Amino acid sequence: MNTIEEALEVSKHSQIFCIADLGCAVGPNTFSCVNTLIEAVQHKYKKNHSSDAKIPEFQVFFNDHVKNDFNTLFKRLPSDRQYMAAGVPGSFRGRIFPKSSMNLMHSAFALHWLTRVPQEVTRKDSPAWNKGNITYVRSSAPVIDAFEAQFFSEMMDFLKARSEELAPGGLLAIFMPCRTECTLPSETTVIHSFECLGDALAEMVKEDLVTEDLADSFNIPIFYPMASEVKELVSSNKHLSIERFEEIYLPPRLKTPEDIQFGSAHVRAAFEGILSEHFGHEIADELFNRYPEKLEKFSMTSEFTRVEKLEFLFMVAKRKDDC
Amino acid sequence: MNTIEEALEVSKHSQIFCIADLGCAVGPNTFSCVNTLIEAVQHKYKKNHSSDAKIPEFQVFFNDHVKNDFNTLFKRLPSDRQYMAAGVPGSFRGRIFPKSSMNLMHSAFALHWLTRVPQEVTRKDSPAWNKGNITYVRSSAPVIDAFEAQFFSEMMDFLKARSEELAPGGLLAIFMPCRTECTLPSETTVIHSFECLGDALAEMVKEDLVTEDLADSFNIPIFYPMASEVKELVSSNKHLSIERFEEIYLPPRLKTPEDIQFGSAHVRAAFEGILSEHFGHEIADELFNRYPEKLEKFSMTSEFTRVEKLEFLFMVAKRKDDC
Repeated sequence: MNTIEEALEVSKHSQIFCIADLGCAVGPNTFSCVNTLIEAVQHKYKKNHSSDAKIPEFQVFFNDHVKNDFNTLFKRLPSDRQYMAAGVPGSFRGRIFPKSSMNLMHSAFALHWLTRVPQEVTRKDSPAWNKGNITYVRSSAPVIDAFEAQFFSEMMDFLKARSEELAPGGLLAIFMPCRTECTLPSETTVIHSFECLGDALAEMVKEDLVTEDLADSFNIPIFYPMASEVKELVSSNKHLSIERFEEIYLPPRLKTPEDIQFGSAHVRAAFEGILSEHFGHEIADELFNRYPEKLEKFSMTSEFTRVEKLEFLFMVAKRKDDC
Repeated sequence: MNTIEEALEVSKHSQIFCIADLGCAVGPNTFSCVNTLIEAVQHKYKKNHSSDAKIPEFQVFFNDHVKNDFNTLFKRLPSDRQYMAAGVPGSFRGRIFPKSSMNLMHSAFALHWLTRVPQEVTRKDSPAWNKGNITYVRSSAPVIDAFEAQFFSEMMDFLKARSEELAPGGLLAIFMPCRTECTLPSETTVIHSFECLGDALAEMVKEDLVTEDLADSFNIPIFYPMASEVKELVSSNKHLSIERFEEIYLPPRLKTPEDIQFGSAHVRAAFEGILSEHFGHEIADELFNRYPEKLEKFSMTSEFTRVEKLEFLFMVAKRKDDC
């Protein structure tokens, strides 16, 4: 939060300070995050304008795609909140706010999600058909290229939209998972752990519990870039300047049975929605009965054991004044 | 819409034009209403600034109470809309937007709803206990006074909040049902038609289908003021000036069996939510099986037949510049 406080340009005269959480889900994480941001801004105002500080009113826009459960989000809004709240449905890959209207936008753990699976990986007649896999890590080069291209295209759209929506001097904070520097997309450990779900699925296809066609047409719309690639993309946007760029490392946790159970529950929470949409609601229990075993098996391979840390990117960019 | 076009002050330099619909429900009425408002504003801009017209971007805030089904509203948002959309949960009796942030706010058919039933009418030990009725029209003076006081208190809160939220020169448009000028609250025809639902309920109490206590504690949180009373309230707010005040009349329609069925369906749509909340979901079918007969009976009384027209208020107020 120090970076946000330092980089922020606050005016004595602005009466409204607009904040957006892009990919807010249904709470409560988004609420504590927003509170932290507001405290940082308030502190900055007090420090800059001392006794005559007139802290502006805060308007917070909670954004997620239109299928998000905004009803639940709204019911959970803290009653003692110090801001006006609004929900904004729609993809953050495009414009969702008026030009120059936002002072601080942030997105936590959402940018690795693609808006859709690249079309060519689901087409049987395509060289990029991703038969038998649900991610790109074990797939042929055309599949990996398709996922990668989709990510970069969507990320550029995201940055273009934000650079238009941010007021001059406004900040964009990004927190997202990445793969280790200098590795290939096929070496993304976390995606490998998702692909184990594909192993469980393949088993169910063999047992005629799921049709092969249905399984082949399912892909998880996620891609992990390298942090340096994201940095480069942001740098190439002439309206944005990078104020902070940090790689954060966490140890991978798949050692104990508890780790495996936690990992499986996490993956279920993340993907049950898209799985149900594709396969129907009845598949989840059976699939996640089988998944922990596959995950455990993966945790004993050298592919996993050689990994010392998982990587995340935290970045703050500023909308330049002069454009 | 002519009034809105005439009264609106538009600046060549403003980049964002903020509109709010207060009491939007789940659509689709709110969408066509918003489109009409936007067209009026666009027309004004084109007329005022001719060829160098730079029409601002529109941001539309759809507001309703937190229990409103915003998920449905968001899914119904027109895909070809010419505005950025946001949902704002919360009671419009208080502040829900930052100060001076809104250019055009409108509320259609929502202001006669109270946020709650006046507490004293549900307390057995109160002189205003509204035993045996679900509205105030057949009740004692203390009950009527309680409903009336609640309405005026909430209406003043509404106007205070709006006068703070409107930008100088911004407009507030109100459309709401009223009772006929120079009549008493007890003479409000439409409320009498709601009270017929109380007759159906009393019958169910007699047949032990609903307990007396549960029926006695139910009240419909609605009050119909006279249009002149609302006008006076708006005039008394020193930040607002009245730009247009119009009473609109519609003929009452309870003549044919189709009218009765339509009226009953309308009342069911309006009140099924609060009825289910109080009595449980199972009551509605039985209650609305009995209601049309009560409504028909009422339609033959002189109380109804003497009524020539129902009254509605359309008003546009402007936030003054100098405060």
